[in-house]
Amino acid sequence: MTNYHKPEAKLVQELKDIANKIRIHSITSTQAAKSGHPTSCASIAEILSVLFFNTMRYKVTAPKDPSSDRFVLSKGHAAPALYAVWAEAGLFPTSDLQNLRKIDSDLEGHPTPRLNFIDVGTGSLGQGLAVAGGMAYVGKNYDKANYRVYCLIGDGESAEGSIWESVHFASYYKLDNLVMIFDVNRLGQSEETSLGHDVDTYRRRIESFGVHAIVVDGHDVEELIKALYTAANTKGKPTAIIAKTFKGKNFPKIENLDNWHGKALGENSEKVIAHLKTLIKNQGPPQVHPQKPLKDDAPNVDISNISLSSPPSYKLGDLIATRVAYGTALVKIAQNNSRVIALDGDMKNSTYSEKLKQYDASRYIECFIAEQSLVGTAIGAACRDRTVPFVSTFATFFTRAFDQIRMGAISQTNVNFVGSHCGVSIGEDGPSQMGLEDLALFRSIPGSTVFYPADAVSTERAIELAANTKGITFTRLNRPNTPVIYSNNHVFVVGKANVVKKSDTDQLVLIGGGVTLHEAMTASTMLAKAGINARVIDPFTVKPIDKETIVNNIKEAVAVP
Amino acid sequence: MTNYHKPEAKLVQELKDIANKIRIHSITSTQAAKSGHPTSCASIAEILSVLFFNTMRYKVTAPKDPSSDRFVLSKGHAAPALYAVWAEAGLFPTSDLQNLRKIDSDLEGHPTPRLNFIDVGTGSLGQGLAVAGGMAYVGKNYDKANYRVYCLIGDGESAEGSIWESVHFASYYKLDNLVMIFDVNRLGQSEETSLGHDVDTYRRRIESFGVHAIVVDGHDVEELIKALYTAANTKGKPTAIIAKTFKGKNFPKIENLDNWHGKALGENSEKVIAHLKTLIKNQGPPQVHPQKPLKDDAPNVDISNISLSSPPSYKLGDLIATRVAYGTALVKIAQNNSRVIALDGDMKNSTYSEKLKQYDASRYIECFIAEQSLVGTAIGAACRDRTVPFVSTFATFFTRAFDQIRMGAISQTNVNFVGSHCGVSIGEDGPSQMGLEDLALFRSIPGSTVFYPADAVSTERAIELAANTKGITFTRLNRPNTPVIYSNNHVFVVGKANVVKKSDTDQLVLIGGGVTLHEAMTASTMLAKAGINARVIDPFTVKPIDKETIVNNIKEAVAVP
Repeated sequence: MTNYHKPEAKLVQELKDIANKIRIHSITSTQAAKSGHPTSCASIAEILSVLFFNTMRYKVTAPKDPSSDRFVLSKGHAAPALYAVWAEAGLFPTSDLQNLRKIDSDLEGHPTPRLNFIDVGTGSLGQGLAVAGGMAYVGKNYDKANYRVYCLIGDGESAEGSIWESVHFASYYKLDNLVMIFDVNRLGQSEETSLGHDVDTYRRRIESFGVHAIVVDGHDVEELIKALYTAANTKGKPTAIIAKTFKGKNFPKIENLDNWHGKALGENSEKVIAHLKTLIKNQGPPQVHPQKPLKDDAPNVDISNISLSSPPSYKLGDLIATRVAYGTALVKIAQNNSRVIALDGDMKNSTYSEKLKQYDASRYIECFIAEQSLVGTAIGAACRDRTVPFVSTFATFFTRAFDQIRMGAISQTNVNFVGSHCGVSIGEDGPSQMGLEDLALFRSIPGSTVFYPADAVSTERAIELAANTKGITFTRLNRPNTPVIYSNNHVFVVGKANVVKKSDTDQLVLIGGGVTLHEAMTASTMLAKAGINARVIDPFTVKPIDKETIVNNIKEAVAVP
Repeated sequence: MTNYHKPEAKLVQELKDIANKIRIHSITSTQAAKSGHPTSCASIAEILSVLFFNTMRYKVTAPKDPSSDRFVLSKGHAAPALYAVWAEAGLFPTSDLQNLRKIDSDLEGHPTPRLNFIDVGTGSLGQGLAVAGGMAYVGKNYDKANYRVYCLIGDGESAEGSIWESVHFASYYKLDNLVMIFDVNRLGQSEETSLGHDVDTYRRRIESFGVHAIVVDGHDVEELIKALYTAANTKGKPTAIIAKTFKGKNFPKIENLDNWHGKALGENSEKVIAHLKTLIKNQGPPQVHPQKPLKDDAPNVDISNISLSSPPSYKLGDLIATRVAYGTALVKIAQNNSRVIALDGDMKNSTYSEKLKQYDASRYIECFIAEQSLVGTAIGAACRDRTVPFVSTFATFFTRAFDQIRMGAISQTNVNFVGSHCGVSIGEDGPSQMGLEDLALFRSIPGSTVFYPADAVSTERAIELAANTKGITFTRLNRPNTPVIYSNNHVFVVGKANVVKKSDTDQLVLIGGGVTLHEAMTASTMLAKAGINARVIDPFTVKPIDKETIVNNIKEAVAVP
């Protein structure tokens, strides 16, 4: 701290002014929308002002510049304040803020990556820190660049266990390029949070999780500047700034009171704005400006056109579990692209993601038994197209992170999920370990692609296709060994089924994916003995499903006399 | 601690013997099954021996006796050890243990409530403590009985954020009748856990969450007895016992080594068993016996035949959101049954569960923004038919607890879920708040019933039906006001659709639930102006769906010339 210089009074006043301008914008925009969260914006106004106008290094004209600092607003309902600070920084006119929550505006009630300055959608609480952790992991270990990651978390959402998974992840991986800021404004939606303003308990919890913790008055610009400076100079561990704040700060007769969550100020607006204006010295545009990154040091990255380093190499009839072929495919695409990475939740020796760890340990991220952190970290790692993450665990344990996956779709993420141990074929371990609901989960995700390969050849190709498919992909894998049924040069296409058994006298059609395809083949053999010929179809992807092939084949079977 | 008496040497030896017998049973049963987790059983053998033969008060002949202490094995993969201790206690012959994991035995790889001594299924990690917390909350606040709740948690699963949600819940509600035991055996499935044997960090984390923490040698019977005695005498907060243990304890050449997770011992079995036998003084049946509860003090409870205290009372055309009618219905059934309770995740003023809090605050449990804890607590509260829990939040936030809900079905729970703010009709708050995937979630749950009432009358009846429906129910609610369309005496039946608009000349059928029914009605009006008559069907439940009514009406419409 020897180099720390107390900020000049003029700068402090300017940052205070920006904070109060953020408050005014938050009031007027939510008032225009007749809904929103102005009081939740008010508690973070100084934090945003100091971050965006003093601490962070980024390019206003290129908000997703790879070498710039990142900011994640985990408490997404405070979006109007975030929009306001970007407008004050000059990204777009402040007059646009009045389009908040309009149907033809991307200034939605919660941040959406359709906006060019938003990396991930937030709004379902407790998810931002995992994403920020993924960004920071990439910055430190893959980009090896100087950019830093800031995440602003509400106190209400700190009750989510996912936050504590992420605090632990950041501590375990010594992410000293990550700063988590807790906005302890005391009030939840329907009552006081369980810890209220007990910042000392927050501090002890966070310290016990291995993070450097600093308690500040979250409305004191100088304290914030100093804490963020200290964070930047703290090595070997992430820093948490625990900011004691007030919901509705500087809103007379509203500040720190119940029953003001998620409400535009209505008839109170004018008086509150008038009061805020009395606090502002510089009514004009900011006289301080965001700082650019010191260096453009994030490397260029190409994550397009990923392919297997060598084609599948199996013999027909070879007995290989699709989960094993997954590990093989993962290494093959990793050989051809240095940005392919794998993450797992302590299941790597069951899902075979360990094969990538064995090939290149630096590209495997162990997330332990914390699936929400696992998924959130991957979404963060995928941001700004820095990596191509493959996330594996037992398929059924993705139910633990359905909310993160759902938000991943809203975030336009390109994460590839791989779930093993699907269906009853896992046997004696019982239903708690069986992927049964996973198809319902992943098929319901907007824009998702769901692969269900039936053998080793198709699994390798599914993984290759997944790496090149935009949006969320899910590849469903089985535990038992199954025979190879495709030739190594078979061409697989998303949404294109394969008819794997056919005759002119087929009277019915059996459809099965993965291990159930092999059961369908067995059934067809039994049926043939009973004099009934059955056609067998492997859908390859169950979303999109190849309606045409299925319907046409059924029509042919129906037509058999 | 003045009354604490050091246990006699004979008792200590007997408990050690039982622990080693548990180890032998865990080896032989997994060896017979050729799969399972004997090393994970070995680390908890003394803990189970002391709990079941010294600390806990319960009836071996009535394992689900309401006044008895409860035990939840959160690390469900150690089931063979749990089965072994119950067998040693005398519930069933130890020879039955050899049926572990057989297809015709309920001694599954993970605990299932099909067994008469299991309250909830476990096996998806990190869930047991929330359930135990729900049981303890009921014991303390509703049953007001002396039974205590013990939960055994693995160190690997302590990485799950859900564990920390539950630790916080237990601390916040001062559940001093709850003891959480952390089995810190250092080793996860595929590598060392992130904290290894660092019991001091566990202690600091747990203490910072407001829980009394005691570190012990988990293989030292005397230390365990003393810690559990201390726990029973600690008032105002729950106790955590942090047991430093070794995976595969007392298994020579296996203890504390990697690569022994989830494997039967194979050719090592005989030597290990021979070694264990040398440690056992009393080779015969246990000479100590479980202690019964001091009092049968849990009250009799009747949760059957719950009904609205008064019928719905609306006028046709009244504009009322279904979520508001939910709050009304909740109070009405609570008036008729003292065991109806509500839990919410800080959304009570949006879901209207606050109406029950206003009617009777003691029957509302605030779980704050921690949906996994919310759901797990409800599952625990429903155990042994002690309460009828209704759990509400925004429908989409149940995705956060899909894994808990899935396990709830395996646990044969009777929890009622109520999700508000479904569909795009919530408007400006955007997709992060919209229930869109919730139907996929709840319909995929085995045995679930899914209500989607369209007005206030049908909502009240849906809630009444839900309270009496076995298994998981989900009631899907909307945010906006919608008109009452049913008369107050309309009879609703699970699986029975209502045709709400009909003529002899209908050419098509529109089907809509909740708010979409009203959109369908609007569409039918517009169609009528274009000369096309449309029938409109309200399914009432979307699982089960009334195929017959739907198909028959479509046939009639198709038949119209």
